[in-house]
Amino acid sequence: MNPFRFQNPTVLYYGKGQIEENLVPEVKKYASKVLLVYGGGSINRSGLYDKIQSLLIGAGVEILELAGVEPNPRLTTVQKGINICRSEGVELVLAVGGGSVLDCSKAIALGTKYNGEVWDIYSKKVRPEEALPLGTILTLAATGSEMNAGGVITNWETKEKLGGGSPAAFPKFSICDAENTYTVPKDQTIYGICDMLAHSFEHYFHPTEHTALQRRLIESVISTVIEYAPKVLANPEDYQARETIMYCSTMALNGMISMGVQGDWACHAMEHEISAIYDIPHGGGLAVLFPHWMDYVMDANPSRFAQLGERVFGVSRDGKSDREMAEATIAKVREFYRSIGAPERLADYDIGDESLQTMAAQSVRYSDIGQFKKLNADDVLSILKASL
Amino acid sequence: MNPFRFQNPTVLYYGKGQIEENLVPEVKKYASKVLLVYGGGSINRSGLYDKIQSLLIGAGVEILELAGVEPNPRLTTVQKGINICRSEGVELVLAVGGGSVLDCSKAIALGTKYNGEVWDIYSKKVRPEEALPLGTILTLAATGSEMNAGGVITNWETKEKLGGGSPAAFPKFSICDAENTYTVPKDQTIYGICDMLAHSFEHYFHPTEHTALQRRLIESVISTVIEYAPKVLANPEDYQARETIMYCSTMALNGMISMGVQGDWACHAMEHEISAIYDIPHGGGLAVLFPHWMDYVMDANPSRFAQLGERVFGVSRDGKSDREMAEATIAKVREFYRSIGAPERLADYDIGDESLQTMAAQSVRYSDIGQFKKLNADDVLSILKASL
Repeated sequence: MNPFRFQNPTVLYYGKGQIEENLVPEVKKYASKVLLVYGGGSINRSGLYDKIQSLLIGAGVEILELAGVEPNPRLTTVQKGINICRSEGVELVLAVGGGSVLDCSKAIALGTKYNGEVWDIYSKKVRPEEALPLGTILTLAATGSEMNAGGVITNWETKEKLGGGSPAAFPKFSICDAENTYTVPKDQTIYGICDMLAHSFEHYFHPTEHTALQRRLIESVISTVIEYAPKVLANPEDYQARETIMYCSTMALNGMISMGVQGDWACHAMEHEISAIYDIPHGGGLAVLFPHWMDYVMDANPSRFAQLGERVFGVSRDGKSDREMAEATIAKVREFYRSIGAPERLADYDIGDESLQTMAAQSVRYSDIGQFKKLNADDVLSILKASL
Repeated sequence: MNPFRFQNPTVLYYGKGQIEENLVPEVKKYASKVLLVYGGGSINRSGLYDKIQSLLIGAGVEILELAGVEPNPRLTTVQKGINICRSEGVELVLAVGGGSVLDCSKAIALGTKYNGEVWDIYSKKVRPEEALPLGTILTLAATGSEMNAGGVITNWETKEKLGGGSPAAFPKFSICDAENTYTVPKDQTIYGICDMLAHSFEHYFHPTEHTALQRRLIESVISTVIEYAPKVLANPEDYQARETIMYCSTMALNGMISMGVQGDWACHAMEHEISAIYDIPHGGGLAVLFPHWMDYVMDANPSRFAQLGERVFGVSRDGKSDREMAEATIAKVREFYRSIGAPERLADYDIGDESLQTMAAQSVRYSDIGQFKKLNADDVLSILKASL
């Protein structure tokens, strides 16, 4: 494995009733004035908004609000939040929602303490060392943002969607009660599953040698996602299935299964370019890209695919070569995506070939992408064409 | 799974050269005066002692020493350390060694800040909220103490060996360079392997439902230990094998594979009673007890054993009942212990039946032990007799 430094200081709560028990004591460690950040009205409909308001007001906590955070959260919304925090003396950002709300809130927490333009953090000009304290209440199993220090923000002015972060941005606490995911619509549930699976794949496909335990840990997450995805889709109010899927999403991107591993992240880089132009759901874009990326890169190390196939997808060796195993594994990956109703082509989002060149060029503007196999603009273009 | 709160704030460094790079900056965050705690002379022989001295002295850090920490570290040694810390104004405890040195150092860190007798913490009279900062440099892959907040201390006056801790006792940082384990003798290497395997088993055997991911994560650790144990024994200077085994030991007891699971811990409770009287190596005692405990408890849930057998030990179903699968799995566990040269019977430590009653009674003095199956004094006696 690679030498590594690991730390994840987030306090993680899982289970029914954890909001009632822990929200107020956690908030009061940091703040008497919070910015409550959320998305559309789903937390109003579910009653979660009222519950949080009543708990915090009952504890004498003053609440300011930033509502309407969009999927693929926008720089302009982040800037709005920063302005509120600065002008009102907010002491903690409380994110209630899924990855978009959490990522937006992280950017607000970082940006409030950064003496400059917050986009500098995402365009990698600075790596801030301070942030406002951030707490989260998760309502969508997908991104793992509840237990990591990164996030993705879209700048519509420059048509850029960039990931960034800083150790200062780890949530101080995150509360995950799977009952709050019962009302997540089917398509969002599917996108969430695609997203956590993508994070697992990104960690799994890398050139780092001597990572036997890490690979098995990642296989554990993938196997469990595959086992529980049909359950959660069949019965959205199956608490155990919702909780298991939520827990997979947290573990897929909190760093605990990928210490000492340099993940690939080419599909994420490509997907960001697609969303930056077409504003499609992140998880959907990843589901489209991954099988085509797999086709394109498998020859870099077919045995990695063979191992995934054998251990996770039940592909039996039966005298197959590693390459044949890899092909059979990728077929199983496609079969799984299809079985849960994930999109298969860019055409599913009405995306044609009009911007492929731009997206390919943009995705490698800092450097070639990927670790399992380095991809240049031509490689990316080939993968995007195959995904049309 | 059970509702849970999880936090592990330790900064973990893995890899060659991490001491040179990170020891001084980490120490200087907390202290200009440290207590260096270590065991026998192995760190002198390996050159690690000189390296640490030279780095710290070069950085103007004042060093006091507590040498000679024994395996199964003693309360009297802890008290000695506390006295030094208090009288000399030590600001950080730096543990260099294996689990015994680390556990002793944790107790010193906690006891220095506790206004009372440190044994209160282990006899569960208090749960302290403060500790001196603690840093560790690991030289033996076994206990996971480098990334958790617990430890075990032996009180020879009362013949008690008790575990205790507090979130305040998480190491601030732990540096794990597997080169520092090259010189660990074969028997200690074996005991370490038995210990990390025991921690995995303790987490695996529990009655908590809906823990699909947790079980797979634990199976990952067990599979990797079984794969790498022979390599590390065959070639003690195989860096990759030593590092992988070390990483398994950290992951087996840092809480990351067992969130929301109530582990069993009966074998640990029994082993502590054996060591409290006979002062045998902890890992050796666990290797003796586990197969006999497994025989005794398997009927509580044979399917758990069957799953372990199928996924980890390659036991094939072939029409076997869960009970037959469980028996075949336990046979494989025995076979593994034997293959690495672990002890099989208490007789291997010249322990006869003279104190079995005392040990059985002592092991349940606070309550029945175990979660997978609750054990009373008679149950414990049966397991101890079978282990003779």
